[in-house]
Amino acid sequence: MSEPFDAVSVISAKRDGLALSDAQIDWVIDAYTRGVVAEEQMAALAMAIYFKSMTAPELTRWTLAMLNSGERLDYSGLEKPTADKHSTGGVGDKITLPLAPLVASYGVAVPQLSGRGLGHTGGTLDKLESIPGWRGNLSNSQMYQQLEQVGAVIAAAGVDLALADRKLYALRDITATVDCIPLIASSIMSKKLASGTQVLVLDVKTGSGAFMTEYAQAYKLAETMVEIGTANQVKTLALITDMTTPIGTTVGNALEVQEAQEVLAGGGPADVVELTLALAREMLHACQVDVDPAENLANGKAMDSWRKLISAQGGDPDAALPKAKHTHTINADESGTLTRLDALGVGIASWRLGAGRERKEDQVQAAAGVVLHAKPGDYVTAGQPLLTLHTDTPERFARAQAALDGAWEIKVDSPEPRPIVLGRVE
Amino acid sequence: MSEPFDAVSVISAKRDGLALSDAQIDWVIDAYTRGVVAEEQMAALAMAIYFKSMTAPELTRWTLAMLNSGERLDYSGLEKPTADKHSTGGVGDKITLPLAPLVASYGVAVPQLSGRGLGHTGGTLDKLESIPGWRGNLSNSQMYQQLEQVGAVIAAAGVDLALADRKLYALRDITATVDCIPLIASSIMSKKLASGTQVLVLDVKTGSGAFMTEYAQAYKLAETMVEIGTANQVKTLALITDMTTPIGTTVGNALEVQEAQEVLAGGGPADVVELTLALAREMLHACQVDVDPAENLANGKAMDSWRKLISAQGGDPDAALPKAKHTHTINADESGTLTRLDALGVGIASWRLGAGRERKEDQVQAAAGVVLHAKPGDYVTAGQPLLTLHTDTPERFARAQAALDGAWEIKVDSPEPRPIVLGRVE
Repeated sequence: MSEPFDAVSVISAKRDGLALSDAQIDWVIDAYTRGVVAEEQMAALAMAIYFKSMTAPELTRWTLAMLNSGERLDYSGLEKPTADKHSTGGVGDKITLPLAPLVASYGVAVPQLSGRGLGHTGGTLDKLESIPGWRGNLSNSQMYQQLEQVGAVIAAAGVDLALADRKLYALRDITATVDCIPLIASSIMSKKLASGTQVLVLDVKTGSGAFMTEYAQAYKLAETMVEIGTANQVKTLALITDMTTPIGTTVGNALEVQEAQEVLAGGGPADVVELTLALAREMLHACQVDVDPAENLANGKAMDSWRKLISAQGGDPDAALPKAKHTHTINADESGTLTRLDALGVGIASWRLGAGRERKEDQVQAAAGVVLHAKPGDYVTAGQPLLTLHTDTPERFARAQAALDGAWEIKVDSPEPRPIVLGRVE
Repeated sequence: MSEPFDAVSVISAKRDGLALSDAQIDWVIDAYTRGVVAEEQMAALAMAIYFKSMTAPELTRWTLAMLNSGERLDYSGLEKPTADKHSTGGVGDKITLPLAPLVASYGVAVPQLSGRGLGHTGGTLDKLESIPGWRGNLSNSQMYQQLEQVGAVIAAAGVDLALADRKLYALRDITATVDCIPLIASSIMSKKLASGTQVLVLDVKTGSGAFMTEYAQAYKLAETMVEIGTANQVKTLALITDMTTPIGTTVGNALEVQEAQEVLAGGGPADVVELTLALAREMLHACQVDVDPAENLANGKAMDSWRKLISAQGGDPDAALPKAKHTHTINADESGTLTRLDALGVGIASWRLGAGRERKEDQVQAAAGVVLHAKPGDYVTAGQPLLTLHTDTPERFARAQAALDGAWEIKVDSPEPRPIVLGRVE
């Protein structure tokens, strides 16, 4: 088959700062998926994009081409609106767990494709798999059926979605081209657009525990993704939210499920409730469902929806969650206000305790993680428990504690309370 | 074996504009040669170097690391100085042919490793192979012996020299990272330093038929290569020379050998003689041999040296050179001064006539090429022959003529004579 372009001309156009044409973008993504554009050529192109970026129209087309490289799910036959949420990843970010059943409890379908954790931020599938029997590998028809009957589904992204992204993601990881807003935005958006949602609410994290540590970068990423979604006829908006300290009081797998269940029962930490409601309001409002989502947390409807979601995917919502064989508590060494409790340090500690994996093929410990006994702004007394580390393998305590070195500060003065939602892009 | 660095950290350092350490450079080149750094990682690094360049110390180390990735020839045991010349490639550039025997005729060893042509500039080996029996594939000990006995050798670069460069050169070709001065300079210099010369004179071409069309770029490349050579204890200097029009009056293989022999016999076109003498003076002067090289062109000693060089490598210096089966002459369509005769157009025409190859595995035609009947500055009369095209395969005439469309200008006014040597870097 004769090719309409050659890779060198496409790479050199981008290298020289030119905008690629639609035809060039369609070809290079398709040819890369077919293996006609070699890995080393895509690596050079990715690095050229790192330096020369892409215009908004280029990026929209690039995302569309990646989307078209694989299967696209279609829920237009459902008799309800569809809304999805994507978080760029944070420490203690269990928000999908209460959010999906809460939004579904108002008659909105939530097809939530999730991943496993790699690095210091956990994966939603890892968390849910700590529930005995629960499984996230569903076929497309199982997902469709569950959306019809239960309203929410949380499943592993199928291997056939955005095939080009799957290859490019692995390539970027080994070629120092991960940290590039157009490539991040198109990667996320191609997968999310492939999931067939009508409404997409993005939770873009910023702060020490987030991929984007600076607000300006997070805002730029949010803006870029909203532009791509909108250009692809998906109602997209983004909240930029704080990730300087963990969300809630638990970081881990079963520990976070436990906390999510507390929120669904009408309790739970204030910040988890606040962020869940903020995202639920956006998803529901975008679907033109004008309600106060706090109601269904209070009246048990969100919890009913959660129980159906867990049961439908083989889990027992009443089963006891795994508990760690060993715990180690760290106490405050002075009295005062906890002014800082660093998300990254806690995230790495939880990862090292066994809640996360170092290599893709690693198993995670369901019960491992960190429990926070105080949050920034709380007054603590010397000797009071500050953090409890959980693991089944106590030899991990030392390295986990090392990650927490300098991760908190106790001072006499009170800090300014920091809001969770820092910005919004529509 | 555990690696002291990882590729991602090296790529991201360069991407972020940092200078790589000696240890990082040594590792990345060695690990690439061993296949531990993957092609896609080197492609990303090459593109990062394209954008962020390298400092002079980085480039020196990079070149040294490439040099150390392969064999290094050693002629220090010879009882004479060694001098080598490298041209960045031009149209009608047969200078190595008279130059090597001329310099050798003064007792200087000239170990000239050459290549084959790819694209519109010819290769020295292709030219010499038009001499019946001549061969350029010599072992290292054959080269050494010939340097001792004859003084000059022109041979194919062995596959074991600068192994990393061999891989990187092929990679750059498919990843749009050819056109990058630090990568060009280190590629040329790693091979030339591996050839074991004490003196290196560079002929950096500029103009339409050259890789560097702009003088400033050519000067920068020359300067960079001289810095690298000097830092590696090789006496290196560069001439920047004109490549707006072909050198001499022949472009091709046997046609250029014929012209070289005319120069060695004391005749030949003025520009070929001038450039040969300019380069010979630099090589000899750098070896502290203070003579006027014009003498040995006039007295036949350079021709004797040539005959020995050709015989030693299996060629018959008295054999008739191949002649093309078909010729086609293009006549001037008006009278006036030939103000322009474009090197690139003539180079492509000669290539299309069969003097060059499109793919590495192609054979070249020994007799194909272009003969110039006038040079810029000459007065021509309407109807007088301007160019004669030579080929064994007359179906090639049409495409060759197309390359010559607009390749010359005849005007009433006389142009400023343009010197051949435009600049010098030491």
